[in-house]
Amino acid sequence: MFKLYYAPSTCALASHIALQEAGAAYTTERVDFRSNQQNSPEYLAINPKGRVPTLVTDRGILTETPAMLAFIAQSFPQAQLAPLDDAFAFAQVQAFNSYLCSTVHVAHAHKLRGARWATEESTFADMKRKVPQTVGACFALIERDMLRGPWVMGEPYTICDPYLYTIARWLEGDGVDLAALPKVADHRKRMSERPAVQKVLAEE
Amino acid sequence: MFKLYYAPSTCALASHIALQEAGAAYTTERVDFRSNQQNSPEYLAINPKGRVPTLVTDRGILTETPAMLAFIAQSFPQAQLAPLDDAFAFAQVQAFNSYLCSTVHVAHAHKLRGARWATEESTFADMKRKVPQTVGACFALIERDMLRGPWVMGEPYTICDPYLYTIARWLEGDGVDLAALPKVADHRKRMSERPAVQKVLAEE
Repeated sequence: MFKLYYAPSTCALASHIALQEAGAAYTTERVDFRSNQQNSPEYLAINPKGRVPTLVTDRGILTETPAMLAFIAQSFPQAQLAPLDDAFAFAQVQAFNSYLCSTVHVAHAHKLRGARWATEESTFADMKRKVPQTVGACFALIERDMLRGPWVMGEPYTICDPYLYTIARWLEGDGVDLAALPKVADHRKRMSERPAVQKVLAEE
Repeated sequence: MFKLYYAPSTCALASHIALQEAGAAYTTERVDFRSNQQNSPEYLAINPKGRVPTLVTDRGILTETPAMLAFIAQSFPQAQLAPLDDAFAFAQVQAFNSYLCSTVHVAHAHKLRGARWATEESTFADMKRKVPQTVGACFALIERDMLRGPWVMGEPYTICDPYLYTIARWLEGDGVDLAALPKVADHRKRMSERPAVQKVLAEE
């Protein structure tokens, strides 16, 4: 039995969907960002990074979405959420997720999390102004070179799909025009029709 | 036979060391950042992200350090660079590498790569001022909670070690006091004594 600490509208959604798709036995606990619960002594004792998601397993906790997604795929091989027997294909899955984590999510975070990297209000405003351009450029690359369709890796549905879906839901808020991204828009619609996704969104 | 595109003093060093430790057959090609070769049409045709590292394999290219490191470990199991038969232990390895990629490297990048996320000179200066604090906080967490010693994952040497070493080499330049990080300092020294590391550094 796993326990997932999450907050709504965060990247924790990707792991939540993957757990549901995998048929895993899990419970969830919501972390209240408005009261800064992620930095409370109780939560920091669980995850010293003060972030979500955190996955509690019987062997300890896991953090970092790409690692958690690969773990879920490997722990539930029957769900076929990654090409586990093909190191190159698995690396392509991981490269996509690593790009989302270290480039796309980071670009997005400059809208509201500028205080992670700077101090001045004028800096936060400057960062915020560039988000439509930086996130837009990331998604233009995804649209053109990465998203094979219908799913990220082509025919097989993988752990790339809930992660792309999670971040693509932020596009309007980031000021990126979804009309210029027809494959991404189609992917988002296709994801939103999956029963696992609908169940998780209703829960969150 | 692999081919690694790299630039000196970048995170490509981690994959370069891992290839060497794995006993892989590979060649290297240096990308000249001073002439902005990473954004030349020729290089963008190989890696449209315009970054290093890029690993060319006979099945296509791979990018993103955490994905490449896991691929090297899985492709050369006899080198025992990751706990491949234990999904939870493998996820811990991946979580560490994902943290380096998406949090520590990103914090460091605000020193010289501010133009990725903003436009104003005053912003770049503000970002730069905070780097000692942000990178320092990342490494304080690594020192306290992550680096088990003697290697990142304890007794076994894994793909976490060349990656930590690569980023820890930037600490002085980032204005972080290594004296406050005795375990990290010891790890860096231990890494620098490995024959594979010495060979790769001489090559680069």
